[in-house]
Amino acid sequence: MGTAEKKGKLFIISGPSGTGKGTICKALLERNDIEISISMTTRAPREGEIHGVSYYFATREEFEKTIAEGGFLEYADVFGNYYGTPKAMVVEKLEQGRDVVLEIDVQGAINAKKVYPESVLIFILPPSLEELRARIVGRGTETEDVINLRLSKALEEMSYIDKYDYYVVNDVIDDAIIRTEAIMLAEHGRVIRDDVETMLDKYKEEKNVISIS
Amino acid sequence: MGTAEKKGKLFIISGPSGTGKGTICKALLERNDIEISISMTTRAPREGEIHGVSYYFATREEFEKTIAEGGFLEYADVFGNYYGTPKAMVVEKLEQGRDVVLEIDVQGAINAKKVYPESVLIFILPPSLEELRARIVGRGTETEDVINLRLSKALEEMSYIDKYDYYVVNDVIDDAIIRTEAIMLAEHGRVIRDDVETMLDKYKEEKNVISIS
Repeated sequence: MGTAEKKGKLFIISGPSGTGKGTICKALLERNDIEISISMTTRAPREGEIHGVSYYFATREEFEKTIAEGGFLEYADVFGNYYGTPKAMVVEKLEQGRDVVLEIDVQGAINAKKVYPESVLIFILPPSLEELRARIVGRGTETEDVINLRLSKALEEMSYIDKYDYYVVNDVIDDAIIRTEAIMLAEHGRVIRDDVETMLDKYKEEKNVISIS
Repeated sequence: MGTAEKKGKLFIISGPSGTGKGTICKALLERNDIEISISMTTRAPREGEIHGVSYYFATREEFEKTIAEGGFLEYADVFGNYYGTPKAMVVEKLEQGRDVVLEIDVQGAINAKKVYPESVLIFILPPSLEELRARIVGRGTETEDVINLRLSKALEEMSYIDKYDYYVVNDVIDDAIIRTEAIMLAEHGRVIRDDVETMLDKYKEEKNVISIS
């Protein structure tokens, strides 16, 4: 089984809010020839948002039909609006041999791994809780209660790290980007039974180079 | 359990003869702050070889005593001379947090993985058998029969690739080095239960940054 050419890989960049996963994903896209997964949502487009670029905008009816068909890698209902990752579009790109990056929260990442077990899950960690606090406070928009709530949630989300394949501590952003890129490159050399069997077949077909000369 | 600081990792660079694993290891050592594992042997030192640098030279009695004590990651008897990788010296470096690179043949790599399962096994592949033939022929020292024998052996060794963690195709050497380094960097971010539990404990100890402010 397996397609003729090597399939792309799905890299899921995840972690608590404030750890910088968005910044890392943006850099990955700028620096590498990869695709980003675009979410589907039922919320109304905001000014400047473009259908098919920012999001796929859908009605609740369309969204729920896709849920019923098992068409999401993951989805969630957030304050009455659905957000989800349509499976078909991701799989299509992977089949074309394209790597896809998906930025998502911890619960979504774990769900996506269940639906697509070949996903590579990367957990972005803050260097410390104190530093995470400083980053949240730095945004200047949150009350003390909300900050504490977000830190507690971050700590709770971190307890799911054992469901992940890799972690990257985002202390110095350039270093975190390099480490994430190293994971992506390394994963292309990971020994996966089906892949290496296809590879070995190619060498075996060449066996004539041994007997003839 | 576990030591206070992060342990180093053992990277075993392996593959058929002629695939360039020696060249890759040499470059890894030049470009990175890592240790190389030095073999023990019972063969006589050749001119210019230094004890503790080229090899640890030992008597057959000493070598067999170490075998009996289970002191080798792997060893082999090659035309009446023993060659082996002393476990204690590798483990000592790993405990000090140093990464160790071990260049070794396929059978040795598989044995070492049994003794030290945390080893990261990297299989160096030729771009094709034809290219491997060209490289062997290029050395100009082998008869046609020996070349064919070596190619058959290479193909047989490749069938063990599913025991490995990663593979690197050595087509362009600089690319192969970069891919091997990416694997080494990525493995430092791999989620391993004991390691991440220790990490999470550090964040949890910080929990006071949540309630106080």
